[in-house]
Amino acid sequence: MTTATKPKAGLEDTVATSSAICYLDGDRGVLAYCGYDIHDLARHATFEEVCYLLWHRRLPTRAELGDLQSQLVEARPLPEPIIRLMRTLPQAQSSGNTMDALRTLTSALGHYDPDAADNSPQANYRKAVRLTAQISSIVATLGRTNQGGGPIQPDPVLGHAGNFLYMLTGERPSGLATRAFDVALILHADHELNASTFAARVAAATLTDIHSAIVAAIGTLKGPLHGGANADVMRLLLEIGPTAGAEKAEEVVRAKLARKEKIPGFGHRVYHTEDPRATHLRQMSKDLGQRAGQPIWFEMSQRIEALVKAEKNLNPNVDFYSASTYHALGIEIDLFTPIFAVSRVSGWTAHVLEQYANNRLIRPRAEYVGPEYPQRYQPLDAR
Amino acid sequence: MTTATKPKAGLEDTVATSSAICYLDGDRGVLAYCGYDIHDLARHATFEEVCYLLWHRRLPTRAELGDLQSQLVEARPLPEPIIRLMRTLPQAQSSGNTMDALRTLTSALGHYDPDAADNSPQANYRKAVRLTAQISSIVATLGRTNQGGGPIQPDPVLGHAGNFLYMLTGERPSGLATRAFDVALILHADHELNASTFAARVAAATLTDIHSAIVAAIGTLKGPLHGGANADVMRLLLEIGPTAGAEKAEEVVRAKLARKEKIPGFGHRVYHTEDPRATHLRQMSKDLGQRAGQPIWFEMSQRIEALVKAEKNLNPNVDFYSASTYHALGIEIDLFTPIFAVSRVSGWTAHVLEQYANNRLIRPRAEYVGPEYPQRYQPLDAR
Repeated sequence: MTTATKPKAGLEDTVATSSAICYLDGDRGVLAYCGYDIHDLARHATFEEVCYLLWHRRLPTRAELGDLQSQLVEARPLPEPIIRLMRTLPQAQSSGNTMDALRTLTSALGHYDPDAADNSPQANYRKAVRLTAQISSIVATLGRTNQGGGPIQPDPVLGHAGNFLYMLTGERPSGLATRAFDVALILHADHELNASTFAARVAAATLTDIHSAIVAAIGTLKGPLHGGANADVMRLLLEIGPTAGAEKAEEVVRAKLARKEKIPGFGHRVYHTEDPRATHLRQMSKDLGQRAGQPIWFEMSQRIEALVKAEKNLNPNVDFYSASTYHALGIEIDLFTPIFAVSRVSGWTAHVLEQYANNRLIRPRAEYVGPEYPQRYQPLDAR
Repeated sequence: MTTATKPKAGLEDTVATSSAICYLDGDRGVLAYCGYDIHDLARHATFEEVCYLLWHRRLPTRAELGDLQSQLVEARPLPEPIIRLMRTLPQAQSSGNTMDALRTLTSALGHYDPDAADNSPQANYRKAVRLTAQISSIVATLGRTNQGGGPIQPDPVLGHAGNFLYMLTGERPSGLATRAFDVALILHADHELNASTFAARVAAATLTDIHSAIVAAIGTLKGPLHGGANADVMRLLLEIGPTAGAEKAEEVVRAKLARKEKIPGFGHRVYHTEDPRATHLRQMSKDLGQRAGQPIWFEMSQRIEALVKAEKNLNPNVDFYSASTYHALGIEIDLFTPIFAVSRVSGWTAHVLEQYANNRLIRPRAEYVGPEYPQRYQPLDAR
């Protein structure tokens, strides 16, 4: 082919597009959405403000935020056919495949969206808002029905984080739980061209509809190398068990390291410092664990962190402390990756809208390494 | 970031991975699957042999082909819940959104696959075979029910192409129609890292399941810059109309060129010569048009080809003559892109299996062009 560029495997350190959404400096450990440092957003903002920021590249005024909140309130109740479809899917009844159910149900949302046939920028923005509200309602409802509960209607008085916890548990969440979950949503909202966001942009660059792009992202997030790590962290903690103590955690992980096993929740392709999101999740894991009267999960995590840092010089990533944070909030492991989608849909949709606004088909090349060309074609009976 | 590579926009001419499946030389106009020239395959092979070739990197013996045919026969009848879901989707009842229905139904297939929980290479191969059989059955059945017909059970005696036409029309297709459709399936089976295949590989590289990767590909193929072009070609031909004649076609297209409008079905990012697939589709369009007693669509196409070649020096691509070919086979426009999926699922699954076998997460970077970092965070009421 003509003057091919051959970057590192997996397109590592390769610029696939320009973007005004996420600033990520892996050497300095900086994450910022549209110029705003993640630490400021985690301390002061709400998830709804962050959604507005990602979609509009600036923070909303009070009136603009009020409008967005109203749009989310309106979009939260799921269309009746989606509730019916949810009941018929076998995986929605038993745990383990909630991501499959989320993928199918989000695809089905596309059939019932009032703007399905309209791909104007205005309609796509409305669909981005709707998808953000609806994916949260789907995941909360799946989590509740997996536990045998009936669907709960959203409460217009509660915000996005509060509604999720309410629809999941049927109980109005405490202020601390609501704020912790809100911060978790903020921290996961965007992360530049991670694999699921990149999949959404590859899809969108053919000018397909936004539901198709978000469904591609959900299926990509499902992979254990992407969204599955915090579930693996929690499985490790549960395998060690709450009664064995932090001592035992260190022992188990030391043995795993000796066997060259990978410890989930450590290292990141982009960050060479501490993942700035881990800073907040570590604190939340500690605070929520204490409040829940179960400080052990945080203590175990902290001991594992120190060991992996000492032995492998690896830092915890966003997944490591989100495991014990979600556990302290009473959330089942099977919902950890779907919750990632509840947050990341804000970033996915922002990237899809950005792709539409300045589009070029994403179509790379492959280096051919197969049987030499040309092979001589032999008739079937001569093979 | 550390030593970033910055290739052309849309990753044009950028090697995203190595692959043993498709050899593509855009300068010489060569397309080959695993070393076999597309012209040899179009002349001598069946779609089933090509599937085997893409999945195994070599052509099958008679016994191996027989085994594959049996596996396809077994997989063709759709699971009952899929038929039921098909009936409830609003878009499946009216034309225009068949790709949405295909996306949702393929996602739903993942819930009912007997190997759903098994991601071993053996299980993934079985799922690749099954998806290839089932997507064909879904598209044929959607096409039939869109026309008001009831679902038709596959016929174990017919091959893949014959079964598709039979399940679509309810009538046993002629030898000429069957062979023409078989060749169309062969020509569309793979095309290296086109956008939908790349989306499937980005998804698969997180080690998500094969259904998630294929659903991502379907949503990507739906985009008008990818799978939609042959439908646009046919719309153009129908807009000119069969009675106006080839003269009129030239006049309409000349006026479009004067208005700087894009003519669908011409040009390709990779080929700088004639698309080798167009060579076969041109001949099929001619033969089938004559047989159907409607040579006009081919004549109009030929006149448009000559004009666009003379005025813009652009060659017809795979989409240009597939439009009149499918029309001569009695296939509705709304099925053109879904039929692309019926064929390309063979290539998508081959690429997904290849990605799993030698995996690295595909995670590029973006060049940040947004608001300067750091922005000062202002409280809501100070904005």
